Amino acid sequence: MLDTYRDLSATATFNQWAGLEVVRMSEGECELRMPWRADEMGQYSGFLHAGLIAALLDTACGFAANTMAHGGVLSSHVAINCLAPAVGEEFHASGRVVKAGRKQIFTAGELFAVRDGRSKLVSTASAILVPTGD
Amino acid sequence: MLDTYRDLSATATFNQWAGLEVVRMSEGECELRMPWRADEMGQYSGFLHAGLIAALLDTACGFAANTMAHGGVLSSHVAINCLAPAVGEEFHASGRVVKAGRKQIFTAGELFAVRDGRSKLVSTASAILVPTGD
Amino acid sequence: MLDTYRDLSATATFNQWAGLEVVRMSEGECELRMPWRADEMGQYSGFLHAGLIAALLDTACGFAANTMAHGGVLSSHVAINCLAPAVGEEFHASGRVVKAGRKQIFTAGELFAVRDGRSKLVSTASAILVPTGD
Amino acid sequence: MLDTYRDLSATATFNQWAGLEVVRMSEGECELRMPWRADEMGQYSGFLHAGLIAALLDTACGFAANTMAHGGVLSSHVAINCLAPAVGEEFHASGRVVKAGRKQIFTAGELFAVRDGRSKLVSTASAILVPTGD
Repeated sequence: MLDTYRDLSATATFNQWAGLEVVRMSEGECELRMPWRADEMGQYSGFLHAGLIAALLDTACGFAANTMAHGGVLSSHVAINCLAPAVGEEFHASGRVVKAGRKQIFTAGELFAVRDGRSKLVSTASAILVPTGD
Repeated sequence: MLDTYRDLSATATFNQWAGLEVVRMSEGECELRMPWRADEMGQYSGFLHAGLIAALLDTACGFAANTMAHGGVLSSHVAINCLAPAVGEEFHASGRVVKAGRKQIFTAGELFAVRDGRSKLVSTASAILVPTGD
Repeated sequence: MLDTYRDLSATATFNQWAGLEVVRMSEGECELRMPWRADEMGQYSGFLHAGLIAALLDTACGFAANTMAHGGVLSSHVAINCLAPAVGEEFHASGRVVKAGRKQIFTAGELFAVRDGRSKLVSTASAILVPTGD
Repeated sequence: MLDTYRDLSATATFNQWAGLEVVRMSEGECELRMPWRADEMGQYSGFLHAGLIAALLDTACGFAANTMAHGGVLSSHVAINCLAPAVGEEFHASGRVVKAGRKQIFTAGELFAVRDGRSKLVSTASAILVPTGD
């Protein structure tokens, strides 16, 4: 399953640009890793841009949802909470399915910043994905 | 005011990478433009990645909020709805302040995809920004 | 159309308890009115309880969505922003359809508190409804 | 602590009307219970009205937040996901603090419907509360 999602991620040019790595996949769950690049990923205070926070969480939630859908999913609603400045050498995002329905798949995600070897929860997400294969 | 926000955007390395252009600024309002780059911005179906949708809307809402804050703002909550596939040669994002309070600034945003000269609403957003200068 | 939705509202026991009145209906739009009752509707500071804010906005958005669906809708996601204390003699909620799709209907809503004859925006909402008749 | 929050809930007329019972309180956590009343709490299909789902989750999250604030909290943003029809003889809501900041307290909540002695997750929530005592 891991290889399938690495291949899927490779078809998304933004994921490639961002250096997203699919670390772990299982039924209804996904974990991603992204190394920080100061010269392309910062907002104006130098933290990870909220758009990239959303990108990581949306992708983790989308891949988690995709394991429980037939024929792919599309993001419908993505909400993120920024709990603390996203500062670190790398970021770990996890997504999991809360409820998979026929028309909508509800997911939740968490983003951790890893700094000096310590991991800190910096953002949470709630996302709704719509199966496209219906 | 336009120059101030162009300078501010230039300090965000992600905005520079994304080619975000500040088109118009006024009290409580912001408009941005971003040209599409197929080789770095797509999700796996080739549409604009939801992370970039969030990035555009978060930035437009954040700049709008910043005009009504003292000393900068940080994104606290960003929610986006994906109404239609975000496909176009360029994207226009607008953000406006709905209510500016001392602790929180509530904003709303819209994203339009421009394709063959026609503009289509593809996403809406609701964002809460927190003033940092308090 | 107004009578149809007044009848529909009459089948919801909570709407009856709350004294919700359907004021205006058109394709994709709904307006509701609810008089304040201090002895049953307050949170602990005496403002309108956030649950009732959500109830009004969810109902207005749901009725608006229902005009563009076949066979009814169910609330899937409801998000409210509380901009100011909801204090007034009566409350007016409006809902409108932003985008009606086959699987999801995206809506937006606003809640106004009327106090001493003056109307004030106190809350905004974003809701996703799912058509049930598919 | 339980008695304090039962007293607090008793000052909210809506909580009294709804028959909300504070079941358990601890630092950053709250559990509530509400018995179903068909003649006052239904939406038009006879399920628990989304406004009451929001009321339960908002109250559970607000009480959880209140344990980590000085001088009370106000609801700022409440988002609920309706995962399954809320049908049962009683409903159990839990709220917990995800991150308590000076300006905002982020919380998450879950709502379970109890039917024939079996408990089912029917809704999740994300809420932001603002401390008022600052």
